Amino acid sequence: MTALATRLTRNLDLRHPIVSAPMAFAGGGALAAAVSRAGGLGLIGGGYGDPAWLEQQFAAADGARVGVGFITWSLRKSPSLLTDVLKHRPAAVMLSFGDPRPFADEIRGAGATLICQCQDMAHVMDAVEVGADVVVAQGAEAGGHGALRGTLAFVPEAADHLAQHAPRTLLLAAGGIGDGRALAAALMLGADGVLVGTRLWASAEALVKERHHRAIVETDGDGTLRTRVPDIARQIPWPRGFTARVRRNAFTDRWHGREDALEAAVAEEGPRYRQAFEAGDPDHTAVWFGEAAGVIHSIEPAGTIVERMAAEAAARLRSHGGATLS
Amino acid sequence: MTALATRLTRNLDLRHPIVSAPMAFAGGGALAAAVSRAGGLGLIGGGYGDPAWLEQQFAAADGARVGVGFITWSLRKSPSLLTDVLKHRPAAVMLSFGDPRPFADEIRGAGATLICQCQDMAHVMDAVEVGADVVVAQGAEAGGHGALRGTLAFVPEAADHLAQHAPRTLLLAAGGIGDGRALAAALMLGADGVLVGTRLWASAEALVKERHHRAIVETDGDGTLRTRVPDIARQIPWPRGFTARVRRNAFTDRWHGREDALEAAVAEEGPRYRQAFEAGDPDHTAVWFGEAAGVIHSIEPAGTIVERMAAEAAARLRSHGGATLS
Repeated sequence: MTALATRLTRNLDLRHPIVSAPMAFAGGGALAAAVSRAGGLGLIGGGYGDPAWLEQQFAAADGARVGVGFITWSLRKSPSLLTDVLKHRPAAVMLSFGDPRPFADEIRGAGATLICQCQDMAHVMDAVEVGADVVVAQGAEAGGHGALRGTLAFVPEAADHLAQHAPRTLLLAAGGIGDGRALAAALMLGADGVLVGTRLWASAEALVKERHHRAIVETDGDGTLRTRVPDIARQIPWPRGFTARVRRNAFTDRWHGREDALEAAVAEEGPRYRQAFEAGDPDHTAVWFGEAAGVIHSIEPAGTIVERMAAEAAARLRSHGGATLS
Repeated sequence: MTALATRLTRNLDLRHPIVSAPMAFAGGGALAAAVSRAGGLGLIGGGYGDPAWLEQQFAAADGARVGVGFITWSLRKSPSLLTDVLKHRPAAVMLSFGDPRPFADEIRGAGATLICQCQDMAHVMDAVEVGADVVVAQGAEAGGHGALRGTLAFVPEAADHLAQHAPRTLLLAAGGIGDGRALAAALMLGADGVLVGTRLWASAEALVKERHHRAIVETDGDGTLRTRVPDIARQIPWPRGFTARVRRNAFTDRWHGREDALEAAVAEEGPRYRQAFEAGDPDHTAVWFGEAAGVIHSIEPAGTIVERMAAEAAARLRSHGGATLS
């Protein structure tokens, strides 16, 4: 059942204008497949490029029509990963956080939809230049890596740029999309659909430890921050300008604002961070979710989340958000 | 002509669900009156509390039904200002940036609508506790002072809290509301209307120097940042947690990230900053606008802006943002 149809649902042959964010570590094949089977498009999180893990996740997707997303600056270090992944014939490949030029032709040549996630207008211009099929305007509300533009102001500005320079390019809003209200709002702003991270991180199929799931249910939207400290602890060389939105906890309280001290102590703190992450400790490692936490009160199957989001958005649009038009 | 009616327009007897932000220095009586005469509600910017300036601005409003807004922590230093202003019988008084408790009773006792602007859920809880008539959920996209929550995620979370704890309290979205698309989006998110700063700063009636107006037309939404440097230069003791969104320029390039150096040099840099501000220099002083700059391409009369925003929002709602519902 299609509750609402947009250019995105028509062009990508979806039932709902909802794409799952390719969340590193958390977004595996089971989540991507569940989103696609519910009528959206699921993307496996290519993350920092572990070929064996990616093979497992494509296997876990079990034949569902899914895509994959990469951290572009990281992919550049092992570009053969893209070639390997394209053998699975992903429906779409999303590039985020870096220059898409080196990869755009290979992706389109393989028949995959090219999605470029953008954090500012300069990125949107790059995406238009490489002929992206889909642009994602990702706002600072998003969990995990991102930058500083707010979703509500960024999306209409990106829509205006696409209308003028690439009118056939589709636009997704990302960052803070926690329910059908936000999906409806994204359509008002000029998007053709949404990319959903945090709300699907809080799904049964996400590869997230139980105590991390419990933490998002217990945290409101004030309880996150943007910070560099997880990347310092993990010694992952993220380019300046990108930070990670994570839960405020003992780890961020201790180190945020004391980045130099963490760098100096990383030989000790790095293993401690990774151990806590493996153990599912919600306090001494980063817990990766965004401001949409404030509207998330339970962990549910991804299919339920996708279908309810679309139905809620349709109802909200139908009632004009409670306004009376004359 | 009422294009769209909401709880806000019905309760405050407006034609459009649009309130102007009480912008310090820029939001005088002429702007507030123009917004109110166009069918919204205009608020004079009480700022840091200059009684003579406020008297002038109420005179400039020339009998229009307007309100006024204060910086709460600053008002606390000269509370008699509120008593004086209430003699003008403002339609509404907005409190922002500080504890509303000391002022709420006096405002409501004078028959004015009490508006509390909030930057996070903790503030929303405070506003409910004092019985605010209207809560503004202000996101980080906003120009001028604010904090870190993004509008798109903050508004629905605030709406849920009000629905549960104060269902008759009205909700406005603020931060990044640059046109009718954003107004329509705000209604989808659960707001009853919007508070508009930046778009009305870029109006003919705003008390803004000509070269500052030219700067917003030339700047896209990437061209602003949140920073403490204007407050350091002006030696205004803003509480930690609040920063100002201003245009990126030579002043912010020089000092943002070098706050300690600016504090040390303030005897010299303070007068230089103020002189540049008085002169309308757009490079060596703060230029106060937000991310909505990216959808603003001209300076227009405030009434035109308000009427177009409402009409655009109504059209957007009517067409379901281009989606097909089934």
